[in-house]
Amino acid sequence: MNSSSTTQDQAKNAIKAMLSPRSIVIMGASEQLNKINGRPLKFLLEKGYQGGIYLVNPKYSEIAGVTCYPSLDDIDCIPDLAIIALPATMVCDSIIALGKKGIPAALVFSSGFGEIGPEGKALEAKLLEAARKSGVRICGPNCLGLINAFESVYATFSQYADGETYSGPVGFVSHSGAFGTAIAALARRREIGLGYFVNTGNEIDLGFSEIMQEILLDSRIKVVAGYLEGIKDGVALKKLANLAMKYNKPLVLTKVGRLGAGALAAASHTGSLAVEDGLFDAVARQYGVVRARNEEQMLDILEVMLYTPLPAGNRLGIITQSGGAAVMMADRAEELGLQIPQLTQGTEDALKKIIPGFGAYRNPVDVTGQFVANPAILRDSIKVMLDDPQIDIVVIWLQLMTNHVDLLVNLFSEIRQDVKKPFVVCWVAAPDEAISGLHKNGIAVLRGAEPVVDAVSAFVQYSQARRNWLQEQGQILPEINPKEALSPLAKLHGVVKTISAFELLAGIGVPMAQVKLATTEDEAINIWKLLSEPVVLKIESPDITHKTEANGVYLNLNDEASIRNAFRAIMKSAAEYAPKAVLSGVIVQKMSKGGLELVVGVKRDATFGMMVMVGIGGIMVEVLRDVAWRQAPFSNAVAMQMLDELRMKAIFDGVRGSLPVDKYAIAKLISKVSQFADSVSSRLIELDLNPILMGADGPLAVDCVMVVD
Amino acid sequence: MNSSSTTQDQAKNAIKAMLSPRSIVIMGASEQLNKINGRPLKFLLEKGYQGGIYLVNPKYSEIAGVTCYPSLDDIDCIPDLAIIALPATMVCDSIIALGKKGIPAALVFSSGFGEIGPEGKALEAKLLEAARKSGVRICGPNCLGLINAFESVYATFSQYADGETYSGPVGFVSHSGAFGTAIAALARRREIGLGYFVNTGNEIDLGFSEIMQEILLDSRIKVVAGYLEGIKDGVALKKLANLAMKYNKPLVLTKVGRLGAGALAAASHTGSLAVEDGLFDAVARQYGVVRARNEEQMLDILEVMLYTPLPAGNRLGIITQSGGAAVMMADRAEELGLQIPQLTQGTEDALKKIIPGFGAYRNPVDVTGQFVANPAILRDSIKVMLDDPQIDIVVIWLQLMTNHVDLLVNLFSEIRQDVKKPFVVCWVAAPDEAISGLHKNGIAVLRGAEPVVDAVSAFVQYSQARRNWLQEQGQILPEINPKEALSPLAKLHGVVKTISAFELLAGIGVPMAQVKLATTEDEAINIWKLLSEPVVLKIESPDITHKTEANGVYLNLNDEASIRNAFRAIMKSAAEYAPKAVLSGVIVQKMSKGGLELVVGVKRDATFGMMVMVGIGGIMVEVLRDVAWRQAPFSNAVAMQMLDELRMKAIFDGVRGSLPVDKYAIAKLISKVSQFADSVSSRLIELDLNPILMGADGPLAVDCVMVVD
Repeated sequence: MNSSSTTQDQAKNAIKAMLSPRSIVIMGASEQLNKINGRPLKFLLEKGYQGGIYLVNPKYSEIAGVTCYPSLDDIDCIPDLAIIALPATMVCDSIIALGKKGIPAALVFSSGFGEIGPEGKALEAKLLEAARKSGVRICGPNCLGLINAFESVYATFSQYADGETYSGPVGFVSHSGAFGTAIAALARRREIGLGYFVNTGNEIDLGFSEIMQEILLDSRIKVVAGYLEGIKDGVALKKLANLAMKYNKPLVLTKVGRLGAGALAAASHTGSLAVEDGLFDAVARQYGVVRARNEEQMLDILEVMLYTPLPAGNRLGIITQSGGAAVMMADRAEELGLQIPQLTQGTEDALKKIIPGFGAYRNPVDVTGQFVANPAILRDSIKVMLDDPQIDIVVIWLQLMTNHVDLLVNLFSEIRQDVKKPFVVCWVAAPDEAISGLHKNGIAVLRGAEPVVDAVSAFVQYSQARRNWLQEQGQILPEINPKEALSPLAKLHGVVKTISAFELLAGIGVPMAQVKLATTEDEAINIWKLLSEPVVLKIESPDITHKTEANGVYLNLNDEASIRNAFRAIMKSAAEYAPKAVLSGVIVQKMSKGGLELVVGVKRDATFGMMVMVGIGGIMVEVLRDVAWRQAPFSNAVAMQMLDELRMKAIFDGVRGSLPVDKYAIAKLISKVSQFADSVSSRLIELDLNPILMGADGPLAVDCVMVVD
Repeated sequence: MNSSSTTQDQAKNAIKAMLSPRSIVIMGASEQLNKINGRPLKFLLEKGYQGGIYLVNPKYSEIAGVTCYPSLDDIDCIPDLAIIALPATMVCDSIIALGKKGIPAALVFSSGFGEIGPEGKALEAKLLEAARKSGVRICGPNCLGLINAFESVYATFSQYADGETYSGPVGFVSHSGAFGTAIAALARRREIGLGYFVNTGNEIDLGFSEIMQEILLDSRIKVVAGYLEGIKDGVALKKLANLAMKYNKPLVLTKVGRLGAGALAAASHTGSLAVEDGLFDAVARQYGVVRARNEEQMLDILEVMLYTPLPAGNRLGIITQSGGAAVMMADRAEELGLQIPQLTQGTEDALKKIIPGFGAYRNPVDVTGQFVANPAILRDSIKVMLDDPQIDIVVIWLQLMTNHVDLLVNLFSEIRQDVKKPFVVCWVAAPDEAISGLHKNGIAVLRGAEPVVDAVSAFVQYSQARRNWLQEQGQILPEINPKEALSPLAKLHGVVKTISAFELLAGIGVPMAQVKLATTEDEAINIWKLLSEPVVLKIESPDITHKTEANGVYLNLNDEASIRNAFRAIMKSAAEYAPKAVLSGVIVQKMSKGGLELVVGVKRDATFGMMVMVGIGGIMVEVLRDVAWRQAPFSNAVAMQMLDELRMKAIFDGVRGSLPVDKYAIAKLISKVSQFADSVSSRLIELDLNPILMGADGPLAVDCVMVVD
């Protein structure tokens, strides 16, 4: 067994001990039960923790009836978990003492580490060193601990535990203590039970994904959710996402820092490295992680997932008592890519008989307020719609109904028992007893027309991701032999020469334009004569990657004078643009024609590894940032999904007279690039195929920049 | 006084009588007080309406202690308002009886009209006729009535009135009864008092804008809000918006039907004509109407507006106890165009002294959870930030704090008293008493990081719109004399000939390319020779407006053979494309060069009149629908705002080597077109300037389509 897997086993065991400790020791316990170092004891006693509780503080002999020891040595057993609520400067020594005692895991509440700046960073480094030496695994520092509600482990000072708490099938892990507490409190209000609530704080040792993995393995947990302020370990996240898929437990994440400014603020706060949010988003989508944009949406999605069977597709049926609500939901559904299919004739005929004349029997269906007088209108409409083979999932919108709660709860419960297909209730201004009643009967209930569609859309996307995942299990990508792929790169470094990069990529099957290097005017003329077609001249220099900016590109040249002029002009302006640049000469190639321009690129990211991008067209890519990313390697099917994510995707189908393009050929190219990127990940830093022109014969890359280390 | 203004006065008086009736008669009153025709009496009695209540129904002599008359004639006074809760077929006669009696206004609850289809439409027409003949003004039919909470007028059967109700400074009018009731119930939960709640139903007579105008004039009303399922009368909406500005009472609207599918569903439900939502959105923006995307956002915005002084600008200060919340808010603010300015040095220095080391003293500020132990940290931070001249409005984010409600309410109240600048509290999972406490002290409190920024952004936009409105008061646009503008159009009809349209537009100062018509190959050759530059040939036909689709455009021709070939090819393919089209010949013009392409257009809309559009570039306009609209006429400043709304606006500033373009010249062109459109609104149906090329000398329209009626 190598040292890495030992560390992994140690972490696994430590996390198990941490999440389900048979006994807990509080280092620096206080008799002031409302202070940070007093609250865990209060909570453990109040909430009925059944394990052993040990307190260490030389100041006291007993707190709230629990013996307090002067030091760890005085305790005659080895607790599973230590809570450290000491000043920052005392934490290292405490960890070493824990190690000596053989305690596997510690929750470090203490602040004054990375979050306060360089001084704290230094202390953090020492703490990690102490942890490694002593073999104690740490959650924190600067965290507010954890709750395992199943076993009444309230090893926390979070004010969430001040109120009533109960267990439930959601595992929740948060980078932030304050935001995490807010989410936990909101979950409680919605009757969403948190089986686990862990705050990971500065994450100097155990991180979000490692802890979440252990929670996910608990059979009492059905859904896992996280609040993130950044991602340090992309590999661990991918592993977690795969495990979540394997066990069919959806992973729902809210991550802040969607924009540049946000990422900056995050960096200054948590010491977490700013990550390019687009990459995170792409990786989440690729591996079936559900992303919620904020805390309320996260809880909406959890609500739906906890109670509702998986839908088989994206075809939504809508039933309301208000035409306006129907429109609002239909609009949102369309924006999110859900279908609102026409119902089968039989269904429409049946609904026409059920629904009053001033309602609407087509999807979205409006049963009108008449169902209050005659509940069968609502019940039968829902059943008939759920029975339609065109429909995968149904949302029912209603409001208020203070005087009809029992009737409606019974009605929905009866349907839930009779029907297997998923449905979700959207009950605006619902009385509290309506929400409780529906929950008791296993029915999800949300609060508004737009939020319910958002949540259903996330649920539908999860079910689609899960189907994709099941399908791709066991499939193997046509691998490029890494050794073979790497060997041409062996002697290259920095910005690769255009000729070499073109040859290399053509060699692995990427359709590349033919290019030649001319080091003199005469050479350029000769190449043009051989081609006997209009040509393009472009500066060739390892130091100039933005050729257009350097005025280093001349298009559509077809006579000797123009070519000579262009050659001289390019060399001159390149020298002015970058006086120290090595100018190797000028690339001469055919003037390619093509309407649509694409860009495909690769970036080696510190967090997520080899990331592949596709975007539409020249300048537009920079103005609109209309690009899609995936982690390499991936299949053609995944590349097709990338194309489908582009806002400008309508252009592929041909717009105003332009011909549709072969999307599959583009997807093949992207997938091929992803396989190449994966096989040369040890060397390739960056690759830009820009532009790729879409001609009648398919895509053709006419320029490229490749950088290796 | 002409008949139109008589009708207007009559409507005004009827609406006043309707909203503040001294006495009410219920036609078809029922002793079943939980039925539609029984509930108004129950509510009026329960809620203590002080006016006279008269009941008409031959079945009863008395209901709940109130005399019931066999017919209207038996009542010895003239009630201000009638509630009609009769079967649809009896409504017309009832209206005629009301007219005879001299009752000015009726709320028609009855359904079975336009909403059930053609049969109901016919009955609706009869009802309108009866109303016009009898002089009774109608709200409805198919409405659930109205509430004037100030005077305890509960002339409704809405289940909203089942619960506790109270008055307040919000006037709310809803097209939908069910959705309106839901919104009213949600407002109650948030302690947002509705002074008026009116449901307008099918709006066959009195409409949303007319009724809202009267509500707006009530001095007890501070903000007006509406829920719309469509817009029938764009002129009335514009008038309402102007009145709202005049009285400084924000108008907040939620309108469903944002997308095509939605509009379709709306049409089938309410009988309301589908409107192009983009036009509504533009007109709302143009006249300072605040648009909320759904009911919760509407209430968020109302909450902020009710309690908060107007901000002087868009510079947002953020104070939180969580770095993540700060990032989430900063991200959302950036997306919505709010600034998160750097604080002045003095402010940062002061905050550095106040805030613990592990917090953040730069905007967004993180005071950390330490303020619980030491409230001065929070109080002083807020005060210092509000004092910064860089800051226009502050949001403070906190969560839970069940044990510290009084302390925090007092703290915020003290600040509200001391400071004039606006601030809003965002308190996640706030205890109920915290919300009540803040409201009592005149402080807005919202529930989440993203919703608070959305609401503040709407508020900031309103304040900006108000400043613009104040500035534009008294300004007069340089008018084009309508007679002069119209005279060249006198003899035109249908699709105007290219030459004529170009001349006409050039005449009013729109920069147009020079064009000539060639009816033969030789003429085309001669024009080319005179120009002695590369030319473009385009089909000229009143029956072909999409020239490219007809293969009717050839670019960049500079030799005789090419021009002859192009002429023949164009005439041939045009004849194939549209065999019945009149082919007048071919337009010959210089081959214009220009990087950026714009499109500017005019559309005469049935609801909003002359609407002017600008969009960026050729195919992209259709793929991305990246366009901005305004109602004609408007100033250069408004045209600049249009350019600023485009998603691709970054392109104006120059991207990757391309030069920035003269935005002001584009704005002038758009404004000019808007003035022209306004002056010829009686004739012009459609105008397309497409493309307009942005060259070094400014914009140049190189093609156009003009349609007149």
